[in-house]
Amino acid sequence: MKTLLLNRDEVQRLLNPQEVIAAVESAYIACSGGQTIQPPIVSIEIPQYSGEMDVKASYSRNTGVISVKCASGFYENQKNKGLSNSMSTLLLFDGTTGFPLCILDASLITGWRTGAAGAISARLLARANSKTAAIIGTGDQARMQLRALKTVIDLHEVRLWGRSSEQMNTYRDEMSQEIDCDILLCPSPEEAVRRADIIVTTTPSSQPIIRQDWVFPGTHIIAVGADMEGKQELDPMLFQDARIVVDSLSQCKIRGEIQNPLRLGMIGEECIHGEIGQILLGEKSGREKDSEITIFDLTGMAVQDNFTAVKIYQRALALKLGTYYDFLK
Amino acid sequence: MKTLLLNRDEVQRLLNPQEVIAAVESAYIACSGGQTIQPPIVSIEIPQYSGEMDVKASYSRNTGVISVKCASGFYENQKNKGLSNSMSTLLLFDGTTGFPLCILDASLITGWRTGAAGAISARLLARANSKTAAIIGTGDQARMQLRALKTVIDLHEVRLWGRSSEQMNTYRDEMSQEIDCDILLCPSPEEAVRRADIIVTTTPSSQPIIRQDWVFPGTHIIAVGADMEGKQELDPMLFQDARIVVDSLSQCKIRGEIQNPLRLGMIGEECIHGEIGQILLGEKSGREKDSEITIFDLTGMAVQDNFTAVKIYQRALALKLGTYYDFLK
Repeated sequence: MKTLLLNRDEVQRLLNPQEVIAAVESAYIACSGGQTIQPPIVSIEIPQYSGEMDVKASYSRNTGVISVKCASGFYENQKNKGLSNSMSTLLLFDGTTGFPLCILDASLITGWRTGAAGAISARLLARANSKTAAIIGTGDQARMQLRALKTVIDLHEVRLWGRSSEQMNTYRDEMSQEIDCDILLCPSPEEAVRRADIIVTTTPSSQPIIRQDWVFPGTHIIAVGADMEGKQELDPMLFQDARIVVDSLSQCKIRGEIQNPLRLGMIGEECIHGEIGQILLGEKSGREKDSEITIFDLTGMAVQDNFTAVKIYQRALALKLGTYYDFLK
Repeated sequence: MKTLLLNRDEVQRLLNPQEVIAAVESAYIACSGGQTIQPPIVSIEIPQYSGEMDVKASYSRNTGVISVKCASGFYENQKNKGLSNSMSTLLLFDGTTGFPLCILDASLITGWRTGAAGAISARLLARANSKTAAIIGTGDQARMQLRALKTVIDLHEVRLWGRSSEQMNTYRDEMSQEIDCDILLCPSPEEAVRRADIIVTTTPSSQPIIRQDWVFPGTHIIAVGADMEGKQELDPMLFQDARIVVDSLSQCKIRGEIQNPLRLGMIGEECIHGEIGQILLGEKSGREKDSEITIFDLTGMAVQDNFTAVKIYQRALALKLGTYYDFLK
C-alpha cells in the first residue's frame, strides 16, 4: 500500500471553486450535526524567526478520514530567504485503519476553503439583489474571497481599500484579468463600504477599521481577518443590532471578531444567532429582513481542510494525478 | 527545495541504539533546561474501529527543528485487514522557515526512543552491579527495552513473564538469537521479579501486577506500560519509600504510573524526586544508596521523537539515503 503525494501545482489543478464550496458546506453541516471531531488547535511560536506552526487535526464520519494540517507562517521568509512566508502540509489518514492515504501541499487549501466560507455565508445571508462588494485588504485572502464570492453572487462592482495604493493597483490589475467585474480603488475604508451590499474584511488589524455609522441597513459583513486573540476589524457597536452568525462558536468566542463585543459586554452569547452549519441544516434561519445587518464571523475550522482535501484526493485518484510513495516498505 | 522521504526500511537502517540513547538524553536535557516547546498531545478516538490517532508536536532550540508525529493505533487492523495495528508518520520542519525538511515512517522510532528512555534510567538509577532484569510483557516494547538495556547494562539473565506461554516462547526464541543473554520463562510475575535487579513493566494493564512485598531493596523499576489515564502495573505501596523519577512531571501526573499513588493520596507531588533531565543536568541526584528502590515513570515525550528523528535525518543526508519530493513545485 502506498501513499499518494500531491504537490502545489497538482493541488492547484485539482481545486475547483464550486467543489470547494460544496466541500465546505458539507463540512459545516457535518460539524454542526455532531459528525466530526476537532481537537483544540496546537500552536508553536518561534518569535526569534517571527514564526509559528499551527497543527489542526480533525476527523469526520462522513469522509471517514482523519486530517492533520501543519501550517506555518514565518513572516520574514520572503524578505530574508526568498521563500514563501506561509507553507502548509496536510496529511490524510484512513479513519478505519490509520493508514496514511495522502500527503499534499496545502498552501492553497487554506485560502480556498476560507474564500468558500465567505461565499457560503453570502449565499445564505446577503440580500438577494446584492451587486456591490467592498473588499478591505489587498492580500491573498482579499483575492480568494472575491474569486469565491463571484461564483455565488452576480457582483457588478468591487470597491477596494487597502493601506498601500501600490498594492491596490496590483490587486486591480491582477483580479480584473481574472474576474469579470469593475474594481474601484477607494481612498478610504468609508468610501469603500458606504455603497456596498457586502463587506469583506481581510486585514490583520487589531483596531477597528469599519465604523458603525458607515454601514447601511441590509449589508452583509464577512469578518475574515480576526482569527486570534487581540485582532479586530469592526466597530463593536455593529454587533448590537446585527444577526450574528459564526463558523464555530467555541473558536470565535476566543479568536474571532466577536471576542471584542463579548469582552466589552456589548453583546452576550445569547445574541449569537447560531453557527452557519445550523443554517445549512435548517435548524436556524438565514437573513429574515432586507433591512437587517448580518455578520459572519469565521476563524477557520480543521473540518474545512478535511472535506476540501478529501475532495482533492478523490479527484486525484480519478484523474490518476500525483506520485505514489511506500512509507511502509 | 525538496523534502526528503524515508521509508520504514531506510529508517531501520539509520537507527542505531547508541545514537538513539544519545539523542534521547539530549532531549531530556533540553526539555528540563527549558529549551523546548511541547504543546499538549492531541488525540482523536474512533471507537467503532478500536482506533485512535495521537498528534505529538514539539520544537527544540537545540535541533532547530519542529517535529509533528501522527501515530495511530487501530487495534483490529492485524486481525481484520492484515495491516499493522500501529502506524506512524513524522514530519520535520525547519524551525527558522517552516519548510518541510523530511517526512519519515516513524513506526520504529516510538519503540526505539522508549527503549532508550528505559536504558538511560537504568544507567542513572540501577545499582552498579545489576545483572538480572525481569521483563513483564512479551510485546514490541518488551523487546525494545531489552535491546536498549543490554547496551548500557551487562545483563546476564532476563526473567520473563507474560500471560501467554506461547508468546513467552516466541520472545525467548527471537530475542536469544539477537541478544547474548539467558532468557528464563517464569510461571508468575512474582517468580520473575523476586530475583531481579531491574524490573521493566510493559503491559497495557489497568490493575497492579507487581506487589510491593515481591520487590527487593535496591531494585530499579522501569514503568513503561502506564501512559494514559486508568492504566496501572505497580502496587501503589511501592511508591511510598521509593526514589521516584519521571520523564515529564506534567504528563506523568495525569497519564503515568504515578497517577495511581497520587490519586490515592499515598504520595504527594513533593515525593517525586525529579525529572530524569534534571539528573542528567546535575540538578538532582541519581541513586544514592544500594538499598533504595528507584522507580522511573515514563509516558513518552514529543521531544524524544524530535531529537531521534533529527538524528536519523542527519544520518540520511550524510549517507545519501532516501527519496526527494518537491511539494512546492
